[in-house]
Amino acid sequence: MHRMQCESSRHYDVVVSEGLLSAGNELLPDAVGERRALVVVDHAVDALHGPALRRTLPDATIMVVELTEQTKSIEAVLEVCRQAHEAGLGRRDLIIAVGGGVVCDVVSVAASLVRRGIPYVCVPTTLVAQVDAGIGLKGAVNFAGSKSFLGSFAPPARVLVDPTLLATVSARDLRCGLAEIAKVAIVRDAALFERVERDGAALVARAFQDVAAGPVIEGAIAGMLGELSLNAYEERGYARSMDFGHTFSPLLEECSGYTLRHGEAVALDMAVSSAIGVEIGILDVADHARIVTALTGLGLAVCSPLVTVPLLASAMERAAAHRDGDLNLVVPDRIGSAAFVKSADGVPPAVLPRALARLTAMRRDNLPGHHHT
Amino acid sequence: MHRMQCESSRHYDVVVSEGLLSAGNELLPDAVGERRALVVVDHAVDALHGPALRRTLPDATIMVVELTEQTKSIEAVLEVCRQAHEAGLGRRDLIIAVGGGVVCDVVSVAASLVRRGIPYVCVPTTLVAQVDAGIGLKGAVNFAGSKSFLGSFAPPARVLVDPTLLATVSARDLRCGLAEIAKVAIVRDAALFERVERDGAALVARAFQDVAAGPVIEGAIAGMLGELSLNAYEERGYARSMDFGHTFSPLLEECSGYTLRHGEAVALDMAVSSAIGVEIGILDVADHARIVTALTGLGLAVCSPLVTVPLLASAMERAAAHRDGDLNLVVPDRIGSAAFVKSADGVPPAVLPRALARLTAMRRDNLPGHHHT
Repeated sequence: MHRMQCESSRHYDVVVSEGLLSAGNELLPDAVGERRALVVVDHAVDALHGPALRRTLPDATIMVVELTEQTKSIEAVLEVCRQAHEAGLGRRDLIIAVGGGVVCDVVSVAASLVRRGIPYVCVPTTLVAQVDAGIGLKGAVNFAGSKSFLGSFAPPARVLVDPTLLATVSARDLRCGLAEIAKVAIVRDAALFERVERDGAALVARAFQDVAAGPVIEGAIAGMLGELSLNAYEERGYARSMDFGHTFSPLLEECSGYTLRHGEAVALDMAVSSAIGVEIGILDVADHARIVTALTGLGLAVCSPLVTVPLLASAMERAAAHRDGDLNLVVPDRIGSAAFVKSADGVPPAVLPRALARLTAMRRDNLPGHHHT
Repeated sequence: MHRMQCESSRHYDVVVSEGLLSAGNELLPDAVGERRALVVVDHAVDALHGPALRRTLPDATIMVVELTEQTKSIEAVLEVCRQAHEAGLGRRDLIIAVGGGVVCDVVSVAASLVRRGIPYVCVPTTLVAQVDAGIGLKGAVNFAGSKSFLGSFAPPARVLVDPTLLATVSARDLRCGLAEIAKVAIVRDAALFERVERDGAALVARAFQDVAAGPVIEGAIAGMLGELSLNAYEERGYARSMDFGHTFSPLLEECSGYTLRHGEAVALDMAVSSAIGVEIGILDVADHARIVTALTGLGLAVCSPLVTVPLLASAMERAAAHRDGDLNLVVPDRIGSAAFVKSADGVPPAVLPRALARLTAMRRDNLPGHHHT
């Protein structure tokens, strides 16, 4: 018997810097250097930033794609691969994604395949992508009717985060980004949670064009990467605190016919998961109230007719199947810290209806109404 | 700036064992365990081993594909992904390749994509695959007219090598496998080279159904994995001694219209690279003669009308482009050891014609004629 050892050690930097596409800014040209570059943008980004991009990277090939969360597919990935081939990209050349999570996903999978992996750079243009979807190494596309069935783990060469790009992002999408920021804060960063409580609503109102934006985005990125780096390739199991808010949310999104955005589903999931935490005795009522109040303060719903006991039960089964048989439900045990409920036995049958009743009562008694805008 | 560290440490075993598909052999069932398995075979393997496979793995889904080195494509990969989806494979389930390098390649890329990477097992059925194409972590398919343009680095879960499966392999294909074995021997294992000199021709004659087969296959695998493990993901540059015989051979194959098999092109390349070694003064004439005699003794050609100075010069340029600008020509400096000629400056213009003349003279003066069968 012969044992083959496969060791890999790579790193990349996520740089937060304003004015990336302003005249004279050299961050993006420096990231490219003398190499060939294929830049992939969607129509919306092209309309907003196309001219500035072409001025910043005059020698790059620009490819405009039309993609949504529902239509991101392996065909879109292969179209990027085809353009990479036509642009003559070699093993050290570069693909650059400028856009939201979908564009980052498609580019990440394409770059992982071209010549068994060429470098790629992400320039996320939505808040969700800047703090979550665009800064990690996981990319995936839908296939054969299954969401994210095909994908890869491909570390980017670099991620460039520019908060000024958020000026045109809708309030609804900013709230979705704040849901992911709240996730990081609740499970590992109490100081970041305080910032979200204090500055979150104003940041939405000012589209993150505010001095308070930097520390919130930086804090979220630091937390996200800190967590990811513990288990970058998910070789060390599926107990991941970044799955907080991601046990019930996939099924919620699906059952809403994707009228619910990912971040909105994550907010509902965090509210329920925290309520479960109270019911199983690991989170105190005051901390739960702070979580629910913070989410509603951001304009995120914590209750929905979609959230029912049977749906929660189905989602738990599905999550366990996805996590190698273990539920690994992430539940905060205080603000800034989380525990795992390893198996479904840890959530007795009576807990789900009581958790839902608790949330409904809180909304009725204490919280203002809210809606998606 | 936030730095993200991505560490990966994995290993897999290559097990050499006879009678894998014999009744009562539990190696393959044990590798699958309780998991679902999709087995991918080509028509030739299905005709030879289909019944034994179905008896060995009665619960597996068997997928029969029609593939050649020229037609292996991303579409074939996606067809495997589609079958994996239909078979309901989860993140811990398994795809099993039973076949030559092409089937192993396609399965390796498919498995790397499904759910961002699921386990796969290789059961290589050709000598080339048993000592080279089927035991590493690199997989690739052709795309947009370019050979191996898309691919991945995906370590298998396990490789099961059964020399009895070689009984039906043609002499020509066995010679191609021996070319890869000679490669490993020449650059790092003088004892293995002696075995090839002594036993190689008889092993071809007996289709490796001989006690001498085990040590030769084991030695080649040990050398190949030992070399690969130094730089499994090619993150540490492109100076790789396993590229011996792989600088001129890709263009030779292409210029032959793929009538030359890969191993045959590798043999021509090794003969030329070694002759270059003599001309630049790093390999002595006696060791060069041993290499040439060993290759011809196996029935491998060391001269061809295809091997011309302009072709060698073009191939060197192309290899340098593929190796990040550096030539990194691998040249043995004695039997069992190799050096790198880092840049084209190390091969002055007069060297190529003199190396070719040296080979031609050796063939004319000392060596028996030979042909492909």
